Amino acid sequence: MSDTANTAFEQLCQFSRQTATLQSIEELLGWDERTMLPPSGGEFRAEQITCLSGLVHRRRTDPQVGRWLEELVDSPLAADPHSDTGATIRQIKRGYEKHIKLPQSLVEELARTAVLGQQAWTEARKNDNFASFQPLLERTYELKRRQAEAIGYATNPYDALLDDYEPDAKTADVQEVLTGLREQLAPFVAAIADSGRQANVEILRRNYPIDVQEAFGKQVAAAIGFDFQRGRLDVTHHPFCAGLGPDDCRITTRYDERNFPSAFFGILHEAGHGLYEQGLRKDQFGLPPGCYVSLGIHESQSRMWENAVGRSHAFWQYVFPQARKSFPGALPDVTLDEFYFAINDVRPSLIRVEADEATYNLHIVIRFELEQALLAGDLAVADLPGAWNDKYRDYLGIEPPHDADGVLQDIHWSAGLVGYFPTYSLGNLYAAQFFAQADLDLGDLDGQLARGEFAPLREWLCQKIHRQGECYTPSELVQRITGRPLSHEPLMDYLRGKLEPLYGI
Amino acid sequence: MSDTANTAFEQLCQFSRQTATLQSIEELLGWDERTMLPPSGGEFRAEQITCLSGLVHRRRTDPQVGRWLEELVDSPLAADPHSDTGATIRQIKRGYEKHIKLPQSLVEELARTAVLGQQAWTEARKNDNFASFQPLLERTYELKRRQAEAIGYATNPYDALLDDYEPDAKTADVQEVLTGLREQLAPFVAAIADSGRQANVEILRRNYPIDVQEAFGKQVAAAIGFDFQRGRLDVTHHPFCAGLGPDDCRITTRYDERNFPSAFFGILHEAGHGLYEQGLRKDQFGLPPGCYVSLGIHESQSRMWENAVGRSHAFWQYVFPQARKSFPGALPDVTLDEFYFAINDVRPSLIRVEADEATYNLHIVIRFELEQALLAGDLAVADLPGAWNDKYRDYLGIEPPHDADGVLQDIHWSAGLVGYFPTYSLGNLYAAQFFAQADLDLGDLDGQLARGEFAPLREWLCQKIHRQGECYTPSELVQRITGRPLSHEPLMDYLRGKLEPLYGI
Repeated sequence: MSDTANTAFEQLCQFSRQTATLQSIEELLGWDERTMLPPSGGEFRAEQITCLSGLVHRRRTDPQVGRWLEELVDSPLAADPHSDTGATIRQIKRGYEKHIKLPQSLVEELARTAVLGQQAWTEARKNDNFASFQPLLERTYELKRRQAEAIGYATNPYDALLDDYEPDAKTADVQEVLTGLREQLAPFVAAIADSGRQANVEILRRNYPIDVQEAFGKQVAAAIGFDFQRGRLDVTHHPFCAGLGPDDCRITTRYDERNFPSAFFGILHEAGHGLYEQGLRKDQFGLPPGCYVSLGIHESQSRMWENAVGRSHAFWQYVFPQARKSFPGALPDVTLDEFYFAINDVRPSLIRVEADEATYNLHIVIRFELEQALLAGDLAVADLPGAWNDKYRDYLGIEPPHDADGVLQDIHWSAGLVGYFPTYSLGNLYAAQFFAQADLDLGDLDGQLARGEFAPLREWLCQKIHRQGECYTPSELVQRITGRPLSHEPLMDYLRGKLEPLYGI
Repeated sequence: MSDTANTAFEQLCQFSRQTATLQSIEELLGWDERTMLPPSGGEFRAEQITCLSGLVHRRRTDPQVGRWLEELVDSPLAADPHSDTGATIRQIKRGYEKHIKLPQSLVEELARTAVLGQQAWTEARKNDNFASFQPLLERTYELKRRQAEAIGYATNPYDALLDDYEPDAKTADVQEVLTGLREQLAPFVAAIADSGRQANVEILRRNYPIDVQEAFGKQVAAAIGFDFQRGRLDVTHHPFCAGLGPDDCRITTRYDERNFPSAFFGILHEAGHGLYEQGLRKDQFGLPPGCYVSLGIHESQSRMWENAVGRSHAFWQYVFPQARKSFPGALPDVTLDEFYFAINDVRPSLIRVEADEATYNLHIVIRFELEQALLAGDLAVADLPGAWNDKYRDYLGIEPPHDADGVLQDIHWSAGLVGYFPTYSLGNLYAAQFFAQADLDLGDLDGQLARGEFAPLREWLCQKIHRQGECYTPSELVQRITGRPLSHEPLMDYLRGKLEPLYGI
């Protein structure tokens, strides 16, 4: 191995870590904007983020990166694409070749519009006024079209955007897997509706004081392993998890005194994301072996802790006695089985983030179809609220009474995140397939959860997924861990295994 | 005026605003570190701040700035040094010539050490363990000596550091004015001690629930004009005010259920700083006409609202009825006059930020002397706790029982702020001189305060000081506003006017 290659590699890594440090500051600006920023501070915050994302983009496209890569791509360091050095060179090259296609002015405009878009969305949602948000959403889609053109694509501009969130995934493949899932889900959800059984969800709408919800949620997040020495929990409108550095991961939630699942499963969900962030290799911070591999895989971690663990009977065998103590005003007359049925209630609903596990993917299909139509120009932004409501009527049999709980419910498009939604469904699919494998590998997983022993599953995820960083692509990872490609079967098996007994089908 | 000069001026301004935007992000990193950062996040936060301060320094010393300045210094734009354009050119030139003397490596090392120093100080203070902080303080003074050497000075290295906080001030002048003040204060404080009268401070140590303190403090801060649409109030160990942008000013405090003045006057103090920040010209953000002129002048704003207003009889005529309602467990049997005497109690005490107005400057003199000795190498860091205790015994007649309430009480040195302390006393002197002038200019100032009419004073300060930015130096500003140079007489007149009646002397 030549000394030149070693030197180039070290310099490239140092440079990349510095760039990642700047990106982590951008993350902080975003976290602060959504949790702390004074109402009038938004305009200048946009300037700050624009300024920093411009710097980051300039570094990502620095010709020196190209020169280092040229020295490295044929060196022994790149020989094994799954080694730390090989993955580093491969992934930095992948990013570099993508970023140099984007003009600096477009990058800055995208960043500015994302910040202003989120601010406009927040106001529009509060006032249930889509029209006030429309101009920024139009501008966003115009910029996303320019982004797709600049990146390039074979047949579908959506491919160019999807790749930002689920590297190497193709729109047609995602379409196929989601269609496969929907074809199985639709009759299953119909059978549930026809079962004549319904959970008593009233018990989840009783009085759950917010300060107790917060303390209880933090306690459970800590129990599954979220490290509050290296993280925080705060309040926001649209919950998220932000990795601000190797020892600073911040999760957020929103509380509703009359809705226990909203914050609780939200916290479990974000803590699942947080465990991935906290499980990444610190010595590889800012480099591909220390980065999460895709949003779909990230989502598989959050959905696993939220649903496969957090909505399991075993988990509540351990947690329910504590919940009864914490919420004496809500749960004294409720049995574990009633509670378990209630948190697994399946019925079509308006809000994606509060949808049950079975109908959830239909919310994703709607967004996936709409954003493709908007990007292609087949749907005008002005017609979006109508199209949204039509699809909710067609796919879920319900219609939003107003836009705030309809087309305005998600922050994503306002933040320029187009091509992001399908990763949620991919996350559900990955989660089910990984969880089934963990069950096989760990033996008595149910028994462990029922005893509050969360470390074995967490360690399994950490070794199999978190510490692999970007050394394998998502599809390689699924194949390596489970011995077969991604399939909708494990998810359907999981849902049937849980819901058929509950609904007597 | 040549087109070339106009173009150079516009480019220089745009460049400077961008640099100021990066600096504002550095401010956010600092605010977040002291209010929100998870315990383990400190090390990486140091990396983030180091990275950003390196970028800022590179921009401040960019040779292009020197070329623009060269084109501008003899142009008509620079002709009037007090005009917006003239002040801009003068002050940017001043900063540029100073910053190019500092090597990039020293700037980054200072930034990193400041962050690590603050973290070490926080731990050392919590554990009352000066020894654990000593190595970082030694490193800090070593770096500050290198900084002073790099900047250069006539006879005293302390001049080179003082200039960062109080531009154009000289150590010898500050020494003289503080000595003049001390010579008047010493016999006055002695006379108070001999008066035989003492306020009943027990009434301030009763039960003041923290949530009520917070609500009450925010209400009063809003009443004097702090705009919470453009700011926040949070909790920290060592209160401060951070300007994070033209519409984002954040103040902080700490609460003690058994100590009403600590948080309340802390909030008034920081809100006074905040009013200065919020009063700056937004259209000149990041440029000298939109920047505060010195820390001494900044402190004059905080001390005026905290003391001249906040500890006046007139102010409490308006506020006391509200306080009695807010704190029914503490104040029902207390009269306005008793309360007024208690919050103006004069007696030697250990903690600078909680010292009364009369003894406060002795705390400053101690720090001013010690930091000069440390910088000159006449005092070793290892001997600092002993020297600190000796001076408290000599000047204030008391000795700290442990270092946490002694030498470890202030954050400044840990953050690399050497030469900063004297600006506190300058602030007291400026405040008294400005307040006396405002009283003359506004007529019935006492009556206004007693009616809760704070807008006239705030507007007077805004016009006379805030909106002047850096167009005048601190000494020019004092001369312009009050018609004479800075003197210790207004402060002594003010203290005598308030305290002689209370103590019957």
